[in-house]
Amino acid sequence: MKKKKIVVIGGSAAGPKSAARARRLDQNAEIIIIQKENDFSMASCGFPYYVGGVFDNRNQLICSPTGVVRDSNFFLNAKGIIAFNNIEAVEIDRKQHIIKCIDIKTNEEKNFDYDKLILCTGSKAKIPPIEGIKLEGITTLKSMKDADYLRKIRDEKNIKKAIVVGGGLIGIETCEALQLAGVQITVIEMLPQILPFLDKNLSKLIENHIKSKGANVITNNGVKEFLGKDGKLKGVKLTNGTELECELAVIAIGVSPETELAKKSGLKIGKLNGIVVDEFMQTSDADIYSAGDCIETINLITKKTDYAPLGDLANLQGRVAGENSVKGNNVKFNGTIKTSICKVFDFIAGSTGISEDEAKNCGFEPVSVITAGPDRPGFMGSRILINKMIVCKKTGRLLGFQCVGSGDVSKQIAQAAIAISGNMTIDILKNSDLPYAPPFTLAVDNFIATAHVLENKINGLMKGITVEEVKKKIDNKEDIFLLDVRGPDEFEQMRLGIGETLIPLGALRNRLNELPQDKNKEIICYCKISLRGYEAQLILEANNWKNVKVMEGGIMAWPYNREK
Amino acid sequence: MKKKKIVVIGGSAAGPKSAARARRLDQNAEIIIIQKENDFSMASCGFPYYVGGVFDNRNQLICSPTGVVRDSNFFLNAKGIIAFNNIEAVEIDRKQHIIKCIDIKTNEEKNFDYDKLILCTGSKAKIPPIEGIKLEGITTLKSMKDADYLRKIRDEKNIKKAIVVGGGLIGIETCEALQLAGVQITVIEMLPQILPFLDKNLSKLIENHIKSKGANVITNNGVKEFLGKDGKLKGVKLTNGTELECELAVIAIGVSPETELAKKSGLKIGKLNGIVVDEFMQTSDADIYSAGDCIETINLITKKTDYAPLGDLANLQGRVAGENSVKGNNVKFNGTIKTSICKVFDFIAGSTGISEDEAKNCGFEPVSVITAGPDRPGFMGSRILINKMIVCKKTGRLLGFQCVGSGDVSKQIAQAAIAISGNMTIDILKNSDLPYAPPFTLAVDNFIATAHVLENKINGLMKGITVEEVKKKIDNKEDIFLLDVRGPDEFEQMRLGIGETLIPLGALRNRLNELPQDKNKEIICYCKISLRGYEAQLILEANNWKNVKVMEGGIMAWPYNREK
Repeated sequence: MKKKKIVVIGGSAAGPKSAARARRLDQNAEIIIIQKENDFSMASCGFPYYVGGVFDNRNQLICSPTGVVRDSNFFLNAKGIIAFNNIEAVEIDRKQHIIKCIDIKTNEEKNFDYDKLILCTGSKAKIPPIEGIKLEGITTLKSMKDADYLRKIRDEKNIKKAIVVGGGLIGIETCEALQLAGVQITVIEMLPQILPFLDKNLSKLIENHIKSKGANVITNNGVKEFLGKDGKLKGVKLTNGTELECELAVIAIGVSPETELAKKSGLKIGKLNGIVVDEFMQTSDADIYSAGDCIETINLITKKTDYAPLGDLANLQGRVAGENSVKGNNVKFNGTIKTSICKVFDFIAGSTGISEDEAKNCGFEPVSVITAGPDRPGFMGSRILINKMIVCKKTGRLLGFQCVGSGDVSKQIAQAAIAISGNMTIDILKNSDLPYAPPFTLAVDNFIATAHVLENKINGLMKGITVEEVKKKIDNKEDIFLLDVRGPDEFEQMRLGIGETLIPLGALRNRLNELPQDKNKEIICYCKISLRGYEAQLILEANNWKNVKVMEGGIMAWPYNREK
Repeated sequence: MKKKKIVVIGGSAAGPKSAARARRLDQNAEIIIIQKENDFSMASCGFPYYVGGVFDNRNQLICSPTGVVRDSNFFLNAKGIIAFNNIEAVEIDRKQHIIKCIDIKTNEEKNFDYDKLILCTGSKAKIPPIEGIKLEGITTLKSMKDADYLRKIRDEKNIKKAIVVGGGLIGIETCEALQLAGVQITVIEMLPQILPFLDKNLSKLIENHIKSKGANVITNNGVKEFLGKDGKLKGVKLTNGTELECELAVIAIGVSPETELAKKSGLKIGKLNGIVVDEFMQTSDADIYSAGDCIETINLITKKTDYAPLGDLANLQGRVAGENSVKGNNVKFNGTIKTSICKVFDFIAGSTGISEDEAKNCGFEPVSVITAGPDRPGFMGSRILINKMIVCKKTGRLLGFQCVGSGDVSKQIAQAAIAISGNMTIDILKNSDLPYAPPFTLAVDNFIATAHVLENKINGLMKGITVEEVKKKIDNKEDIFLLDVRGPDEFEQMRLGIGETLIPLGALRNRLNELPQDKNKEIICYCKISLRGYEAQLILEANNWKNVKVMEGGIMAWPYNREK
């Protein structure tokens, strides 16, 4: 039998994974990787940590777990895969099954024929067409070269001020890296908030945390012009006219699918500019598969086309493409729920599923709640978590979950991601049998507690109001009564100072006369995390106040200025 | 309308939770807690950490998160609940709806009438009927009094040697606590392994870790007699005749439901000696609910009666009992999947669902695999995880998952627990969209990677053999060829020394002539975690060897003696 010839274009994440999977399923096939860049299997998600000095050995980014650099020799000997670097594929002759390539170093042409082709061309950083964009000192953090460049800046310590354009995941990771590198950093985000996968309120908490670390964040503002002198970046002018000095700018406004080759070859490109594949990772050409950042995928909740350029998905998709290229369409990758996580100094921010707005747009009737609480008992050194849970009111199905804080966000998001993948409902989740011991969690885990609160809200027992709505009422000078039900010591230590009255929960039943005697007056109760706030609401309702609410998440979810 | 009167017996976990839930749903009811002990809401799962010196303020065990001790005043003022301590309920007149009690301090009788009663009498430590059991120096770690006693031992530093009888969860936590307290400790377990919720092999890895910390573990051996002098413990004699000196013994052979009151009152008691309740937490008497360690529950996988005395479940059950006592049978607690987790020095051990043996006993056709791997990239300081995944071969449904190691075991178990609750199958789990960033996990999370390996095994691609089976073959001097496919440096650093041949994977294709030329000879491949071992298997099979296996989990899962 003729040996099957499988060619993979792209040597970063999806590419090597699909090649390795193909090899494991067919020891006889000829398997080739063509990579434009010099390195293979770069752990590009690790770039910020190399730049920030978490580790010093650059090779760790391109090593196998046992410390072997993944170069052509490694692929040949360990994997039986022929891997070419510095070769660019420029055209695919789909009829003849031939890929035309250029050797970047020698400029020579080189052709490869294939039986099955797997396109893993990845993504490219979006570069805004702004005046001055070509100045020296403007970079992205997309390639090993970028990582080397920024790491050198860290090591040389010559640059004092930098900006990051874009407050998404990469932007925020880069912000932390450069701040840790000793550079004074400002993140500039055009949208009203950073980390757009987060609820606005939770995002604001992350923004506050970043500022508390000495970095600056400017939202609702873009870069209008890069200002230079002698070809070197000296500053930026923002859309609102402000000018900021800086010698370095990192562009992190997102990535778009790298589809030039696919387009030129006539493969179907989708609405989101990604290569169109089915659940087998097969493109519009039956002999061509595609995986990773260059493709569009399906959002498993909205059922709509989505773009999810994430390293873990690239690996999962690559595995499917590799298998199907060898075995025929055999296994599926069904889609994404867009799970994200990001370390932000001592905080972590994570999200899975869809937001409340997306849920509305998709015709769900979403109901959501924000909660706050410690992630484990005080005696084990508790850390804060602020959660947002979104479910479908009709079915109870979990649609989305977000979490920020210094606690174990990773576990919370992982739990929620599995629950969403399993189409699980709040009815099951609220009684989850999770791993409990004091070093790890509370007896009622935050995730479960959030499900309980949301259930209370759905059943009309808890009447929530968001901090955002409360702030608006205060700004509009609405006639509301704000009730803080914590203890006097707590009040002395920290308080909002928004015109609230302090009546500790334990004294509330005996001090009802200090409340507005108009039983229709809007009363908003809260405490540190609004558990006592909730109990206060119930007490007031039992005493015939008709319009009592709980500020969700309490002071811990309040992202605005506090008196103390 | 007459106020409803709800009485809760028991003030630890399920009791206060059910009372609080009842109060939130009915502000007018009269709600009473009767507690035999002096303290309320003791965080008993935190006792080992208090004894071990993780924290020093005893009050943290009985405080609300804001630092208020949960005493009768707290319950009255903050919760509107009348909480009596030092009152023992001795009889229930179910016809008259009256509970007869004794005030432990004054010996006075005291009666309470009720509309609905919630029994949360908890559990009692099993005490073996062994000679010398009454000697001074023998205790349990069940009550605040026990915790105080052991903490005093830590602080006074007079005791040098202690034993823990029982290698279950509490036994192992106590072992760590006392070892950290500076006491030389030996755990004695009658079964062949500690932590019976773990696979034998994984349990052995934990045992090795405990021993590496200076504590001793003796399995397959029980205590035959406690030896004393002048009424004080001086040592133990084991069933195999060995004698050990010790001045302290902690009995931790498990707990049994505290059902004396329920039995005396004629409530239905089950096969496992727990109070029988339905999914509404209702006992055989419609006016009596029960929750927590005193009840039996249903195992959601086996559908059989099970006993799961865990603090988190007590809270969930208490919440259900509290609600139903007020609203009528409204909400359900369906059962347990017996999720457990335990910190063991620098390791963590966790499990959820059922074991392979249990699965067989229940008529599933289980298939399982053991894997090992780092929990995040090397450049972020990777930590080891050893996993066991058990699924139903026919349906692909996840039945059980276990994990031990220094990595993020808590997240792995939580993910698996949610997946089991959602009846999820390996087919969905293998493409899970989990939170990925280098500080938290690998691009292919350990849980997903384990699903991939198990899928490969189910499909006949990976031929696994456990370390236990390999060890048996070696001990039986079977004619096998052991192939370590790591690099020479790795081999120099650490190796099994069980007669293996080293041929690095990268050289294997060119050194096939060094392998047994009998193509039917049994060859067992491995590496550090057996990923390369798996690739070696595939290479050998492609070269016509017919009987090639991979040692699951590689050297990381090998719990026996190593040469290096």
